[in-house]
Amino acid sequence: MSKAEIGLIGLGTMGSNLALNIAEKGHRIAVYNRTMARTEEFAANAGPLRDMVVPCETIEALAEAIEPPRPVIIMTVAGTPVDEQIALLRRVLSAGDIIIDAGNANFRDTMRRFAELEGSGLTFIGMGVSGGEEGARHGPSIMVGGTEQSYRRIEKVLLDISAKYHGEPCAALMGPNGAGHFVKTIHNGIEYADMQMIAEIYGILRDGVGMAPKEIGEIFARWNEGRLNSYLIEITAKVLAADDPKTGRPMVDMILDRAGQKGTGKWSVIEAQMLGVPATAIEAAVAARVLSSMRDERLAAEKAYGTQTTNQFTGDRQALLADLELALFAGKIAAYAQGFAVMDAASREFSWDIPLPTVAKIWRAGCIIRSQFLGTLAEAFTGEKVANLLMAPAFVEMMKGAHPSLRRVIAGASEAGLPVPALSSALGYFDLYRQGRGTSNLLQAQRDFFGAHGFERVDEPGAFHGPWGSGSL
Amino acid sequence: MSKAEIGLIGLGTMGSNLALNIAEKGHRIAVYNRTMARTEEFAANAGPLRDMVVPCETIEALAEAIEPPRPVIIMTVAGTPVDEQIALLRRVLSAGDIIIDAGNANFRDTMRRFAELEGSGLTFIGMGVSGGEEGARHGPSIMVGGTEQSYRRIEKVLLDISAKYHGEPCAALMGPNGAGHFVKTIHNGIEYADMQMIAEIYGILRDGVGMAPKEIGEIFARWNEGRLNSYLIEITAKVLAADDPKTGRPMVDMILDRAGQKGTGKWSVIEAQMLGVPATAIEAAVAARVLSSMRDERLAAEKAYGTQTTNQFTGDRQALLADLELALFAGKIAAYAQGFAVMDAASREFSWDIPLPTVAKIWRAGCIIRSQFLGTLAEAFTGEKVANLLMAPAFVEMMKGAHPSLRRVIAGASEAGLPVPALSSALGYFDLYRQGRGTSNLLQAQRDFFGAHGFERVDEPGAFHGPWGSGSL
Repeated sequence: MSKAEIGLIGLGTMGSNLALNIAEKGHRIAVYNRTMARTEEFAANAGPLRDMVVPCETIEALAEAIEPPRPVIIMTVAGTPVDEQIALLRRVLSAGDIIIDAGNANFRDTMRRFAELEGSGLTFIGMGVSGGEEGARHGPSIMVGGTEQSYRRIEKVLLDISAKYHGEPCAALMGPNGAGHFVKTIHNGIEYADMQMIAEIYGILRDGVGMAPKEIGEIFARWNEGRLNSYLIEITAKVLAADDPKTGRPMVDMILDRAGQKGTGKWSVIEAQMLGVPATAIEAAVAARVLSSMRDERLAAEKAYGTQTTNQFTGDRQALLADLELALFAGKIAAYAQGFAVMDAASREFSWDIPLPTVAKIWRAGCIIRSQFLGTLAEAFTGEKVANLLMAPAFVEMMKGAHPSLRRVIAGASEAGLPVPALSSALGYFDLYRQGRGTSNLLQAQRDFFGAHGFERVDEPGAFHGPWGSGSL
Repeated sequence: MSKAEIGLIGLGTMGSNLALNIAEKGHRIAVYNRTMARTEEFAANAGPLRDMVVPCETIEALAEAIEPPRPVIIMTVAGTPVDEQIALLRRVLSAGDIIIDAGNANFRDTMRRFAELEGSGLTFIGMGVSGGEEGARHGPSIMVGGTEQSYRRIEKVLLDISAKYHGEPCAALMGPNGAGHFVKTIHNGIEYADMQMIAEIYGILRDGVGMAPKEIGEIFARWNEGRLNSYLIEITAKVLAADDPKTGRPMVDMILDRAGQKGTGKWSVIEAQMLGVPATAIEAAVAARVLSSMRDERLAAEKAYGTQTTNQFTGDRQALLADLELALFAGKIAAYAQGFAVMDAASREFSWDIPLPTVAKIWRAGCIIRSQFLGTLAEAFTGEKVANLLMAPAFVEMMKGAHPSLRRVIAGASEAGLPVPALSSALGYFDLYRQGRGTSNLLQAQRDFFGAHGFERVDEPGAFHGPWGSGSL
């Protein structure tokens, strides 16, 4: 039997699916799991792909089974397990081999691992994989961080297994070092914002208009045919249409309103702060999940403040629906503008040279935030360099048409007591961004008054103090 | 001449003022600066306090001049200079002596310094000092982090030099280790939110109503007599009333709308994220400063999107002013609720046992956010432990009266295109917090659909999956 082209460690759901995907595309793959039972089970269930799989009992056997230079994918829980596998691999691999972490690593861990492997002769790749279990099996979006040379070694496999958008593979090199995992983190941050904005619109329809889940689901299904067309809108329609097999009631009505999170939203916000880039829509979404988890406090607060009024909407329903669709679209534009601005800043900070149009392109299929919108976005970034997505001509036109609806929706929801934190953070961002003359002249006056920080003038360069005298009272 | 009671390194404006304050309160102080010229200048200008000051040419002389156990305050630029001074002090101090960092340190640096000094025989104190130059000279608010024993050694000096609120000194031990600098960081974070909300109200009056700075200043002066009574409102009135000596025009109109920042707002947001506590009002304020600094982009965006409409307000001006006052008050309540929730979480995370009522008490005078409001807040925290400031009975009553105005203001400003990012983040926080049944049931359905994350049900405990089948499309 010929040697395997690539290896994989960690046969959990994601690892197994990725291995089957690789095998299916004609690449012989050696697999190893900490427990041999799992490896055997995997091989036994590989069906027609069994011939393309080389189950290995030990990590030594895994190394032996692969054709040098050997690429080995680690697909374990992020954190310490990855470091443990790297330590084991260092003992059995040799110069030129490539260790690939395909888990949900924090890019700062990835950068540390790059540094630790320097001089060892081994190469490292930090690879973000999006699309969940289904994506791993049938075509994920793959964001690679590493050297050009190491990427070329595995490029064929990655292009083969990745999702395709009208035939174009959704896998690419994002840049050296932690670039791949960074892009994946921001992907997830944007996903948080996308989902929260959808939930806010759902809340308006549920509590403001008093619609049943199925009715709301039909609206999302209709929106999925238009400018909002995307995987998240599609599945929103589907989950809203589903019934609970146990009670026969709408499934969403039986699900507790307490959301979990795994950290990538939080990382996005922290890195955005470190880079000095606003990511308020992502932060609003993270905050909403945190507050959702404080259910007992929320119930107590509802008692203290009285139940929110519901089903108060008596206006023109068609006009409202049109506004909601455009409001969601406007919010989405602002959230993506923030996410891409964060990547742009990181790219400069870490000298990664992330190809932003390519990021948008490999997100068009395979990943959770895949959408038609990302096609437009890829085009917007392909032409002349723009300072912010909000300044790309196509987006100026779309935003011009959409922001009035976002205003009306926020005004109505705010007055009705319906929470719209992510949508209003998006509007706040837009309104600050397009305000030529802001209000921070007042902040500068205050700061000079109490801290003698000084300020700039509108009519001449330099630093000045106000006539109040430093810190006087 | 008797020995000095305390020493101080770093005779910049803050250090000089603090030293004079200490001398004035009857505590002999030894001072040292890297350049002797500055030390001599300081002594020469000490006037009647000259006898209480011991100028030292070397750090050895400084150590020699203080009565053991020797407390030495370092008041330099935060960062490396502090570490350099600590290294020098380790050479000249001995067991039992106390090194006090009174600069604007990141509490994580403070924790590192505590760890580094462990076993050296020396004690460390991280001390937050708020109130600017004027506060340092005549009475700052002082937030101490360290052991009870080391605090006792310097307590008398700190109580003497601190600001007084109706006779009560605004200095206290916040807890061990980094607690003092952490509390100072959150103080500054809240200050960011306070200032941004004021700027948003100013923007509504300037661009929505079309008022001149002096008119707006008069409104703030009037508000300063009521529930908003605070230093920041007072100085807002003052800076708005001031004229530019050069042009004779209102001073604020001649100040460029580009705000600076020094990092504590950003640290607040990062730490809040790490602790998993929403601090959206602080983040909105940090984002607003960042956007204010991107002036060229804003001007370009204004061109692309058209100038924001101004002076459109035609309603009842008195009703609007009443709403704006209450909106600012409601926003303030939510921002402080967030800030105190962050401190509460940090206190638990780091086992600091921060006395929250005391935090509010020592902020009532001396610091930038000093206000009448903090008295009410101190009382709210003194009684039975509440989960969140929003649940303290006095605040429930105040917020009930104020949030309808916040809604109307956000609705109006959003429709008019006037940016209200911090105020609307405050409303979003409140509306999520008091919503007994949220919308994250939808998020959980989506997450289960694409990632098989599972969800809880409303009718029985456990983890469940929806009828969509994991990840199926």
